[in-house]
Amino acid sequence: MLQTISWTGSAARLLDQTKLPTETVYVDIVDERQMWDAIKRLVVRGAPAIGVAAAFGVYLGVRETGGGAEALLARVNDVCRYLGTSRPTAVNLFWALDRIREVASFVYGFSAKAPDKSTAVDDIKASILHECIAMLEEDNRVCRAIGEHGAKLLEKHRGPDGRINLLTHCNAGGLATVQFGTALAPVYVGHERGLQFHVFADETRPLLQGSRITAYELQENGIPVTVICDNMAATVMKEGKAAAVIVGTDRVAANGDVANKIGTLGVAILANYFGIPFYVAAPSSSIDLTLVSGSQIPIEQRDGAEVSQGLGRTTAPAGVDIYNPAFDVTPAKLVTAIITENGVAEAPYETSLSVMCRKTGRFTPKSRTIVTPAPA
Amino acid sequence: MLQTISWTGSAARLLDQTKLPTETVYVDIVDERQMWDAIKRLVVRGAPAIGVAAAFGVYLGVRETGGGAEALLARVNDVCRYLGTSRPTAVNLFWALDRIREVASFVYGFSAKAPDKSTAVDDIKASILHECIAMLEEDNRVCRAIGEHGAKLLEKHRGPDGRINLLTHCNAGGLATVQFGTALAPVYVGHERGLQFHVFADETRPLLQGSRITAYELQENGIPVTVICDNMAATVMKEGKAAAVIVGTDRVAANGDVANKIGTLGVAILANYFGIPFYVAAPSSSIDLTLVSGSQIPIEQRDGAEVSQGLGRTTAPAGVDIYNPAFDVTPAKLVTAIITENGVAEAPYETSLSVMCRKTGRFTPKSRTIVTPAPA
Repeated sequence: MLQTISWTGSAARLLDQTKLPTETVYVDIVDERQMWDAIKRLVVRGAPAIGVAAAFGVYLGVRETGGGAEALLARVNDVCRYLGTSRPTAVNLFWALDRIREVASFVYGFSAKAPDKSTAVDDIKASILHECIAMLEEDNRVCRAIGEHGAKLLEKHRGPDGRINLLTHCNAGGLATVQFGTALAPVYVGHERGLQFHVFADETRPLLQGSRITAYELQENGIPVTVICDNMAATVMKEGKAAAVIVGTDRVAANGDVANKIGTLGVAILANYFGIPFYVAAPSSSIDLTLVSGSQIPIEQRDGAEVSQGLGRTTAPAGVDIYNPAFDVTPAKLVTAIITENGVAEAPYETSLSVMCRKTGRFTPKSRTIVTPAPA
Repeated sequence: MLQTISWTGSAARLLDQTKLPTETVYVDIVDERQMWDAIKRLVVRGAPAIGVAAAFGVYLGVRETGGGAEALLARVNDVCRYLGTSRPTAVNLFWALDRIREVASFVYGFSAKAPDKSTAVDDIKASILHECIAMLEEDNRVCRAIGEHGAKLLEKHRGPDGRINLLTHCNAGGLATVQFGTALAPVYVGHERGLQFHVFADETRPLLQGSRITAYELQENGIPVTVICDNMAATVMKEGKAAAVIVGTDRVAANGDVANKIGTLGVAILANYFGIPFYVAAPSSSIDLTLVSGSQIPIEQRDGAEVSQGLGRTTAPAGVDIYNPAFDVTPAKLVTAIITENGVAEAPYETSLSVMCRKTGRFTPKSRTIVTPAPA
């Protein structure tokens, strides 16, 4: 499968998703400003991938910091704050930055107590890089587990044609994660086991992650896919061509409200109208138990030029007002189930989501191996 | 206001809508093949405009036909059949072609009985042209009347900001008719009377009639407009920014089911979910009482390249399957009211629509003035 993010030894290598589907180009990101720009411009996108990319962004931003451990720690905080301004909606970004900050603080505290403090700066830097690489690997394990739980859930939607006919919006596939995907993970796992799928991919205006990215990766992986414009989803459902909807998410509130790419709310309402289940696939890192409901999730507003100029020709009159929210919030009552790496959560979500998060456990740096143990 | 279609004396002049919003270019259509192509390629589009354009297409296709009246009549039928293959969904196309055929037959019968039959060919040709010009003028009267009825209906949706906030899909404005529009006619009439409007225009993929055409004509006419991607309509409604939806139609079945641009069904379901009225504006010529329900309306399927290549760059992987229905059918139960030139129809539509059509009366050539009266 395609590698969305990898570590070359000196740079974070990203598949440039702005160039898909016509060009498969990788870019090597070597500092935090390049990473901020890559996240902002959607060179890398998808909540889980943004999290891992941001973590590498911190490492790239601090690896050459001189001075002592205190200066390094201050620099870690500065770079985290800076990268946190790139995109507001996906909670994985903040989750990843917090995790890196905690690792740095922990190793700092650990090394500061050691008899020989001279390795503290190197210890902190090495631990940050180690944590980034651990996150890469963890993302694959988490996505794979989502795939296992999801494949079981989807199996019951096999149609008379023997296929499981799905509809998805935006891209929550391998290219939204390190490699394996969230919403598409059940498709890949099921496909390995001989289940047959067909996926309708909403093209997902304005930036067409569905037609450019979802269709591309499904095609690459041998899964039958049909591209539709977003406004055709109602007809597809009416014609009985989709047995279920499955999407990813950028942030789930404690009550089960789900923020995801603009248009998801509309798809959920259509699915509800046509009596089709609406599933959300989410690593537990996308669940934000600090938010009571979806109304507290900040929604990124993006430049109207993405709508009027984004496709190679001008598609709206000059000077016209454009509204371009990048995400919407689907209320929990429209969500049939949320598939996590720890199992499938159903309503009432206040309970089920907190169970899913407890199974992961709050991240604690103490539970992790330290790369460079302090001398005895 | 812009003239979608006009008669130059020797050609049908069309505003080339494929070039909007960046270029305002007119093309002079001089034969039936050019008109077929203009309809097929959406140089002229919108059900009422297609009807009038097709009528001119017949005239252009027969005006140089030699031979006697019988040969001319056969040629009229051939050209009508040919133009009828351009687009299948809008009933106005067939309505207009039938009307021209009936005029030709009537004048033929009239002239054949006359003592001097030598003018029959010229009489038929002149009557066809006269009918085309009558249809141009009639379209303006009909649209104006829709505007009057619609403005009264919309007035009650004035919001706390004093404005009537609407959402529309595709283009059922002046550029979908000769000049004045159907769904936008109430806005233009209300605006003349001092009502304030704001319109959200769904961009309407794949061909972007909303952002390219609706936004363009509203802006030209001084009506505040905001362009959104189709998938943002749910968010606009959820945020309380649209008090009503108003759209046009390509064909209404006897039971009130409404065929319109793909995506209309989705908008109707969203409006229903959010408790927002969903209005359809339709000249009675768009009502097809011969169809019991919308399932009998033929839906045009268009080339997938409109989705993947239509915007100046390739937006889907090569060879991917694309589903591109041009229309969908909204069930009558989701339609709050249908605004016609003869008044506002509400459920049960079987009754109310037939009243609307009776008020227009079935077109009868006998009721019309003959351009060249036969000698006494």
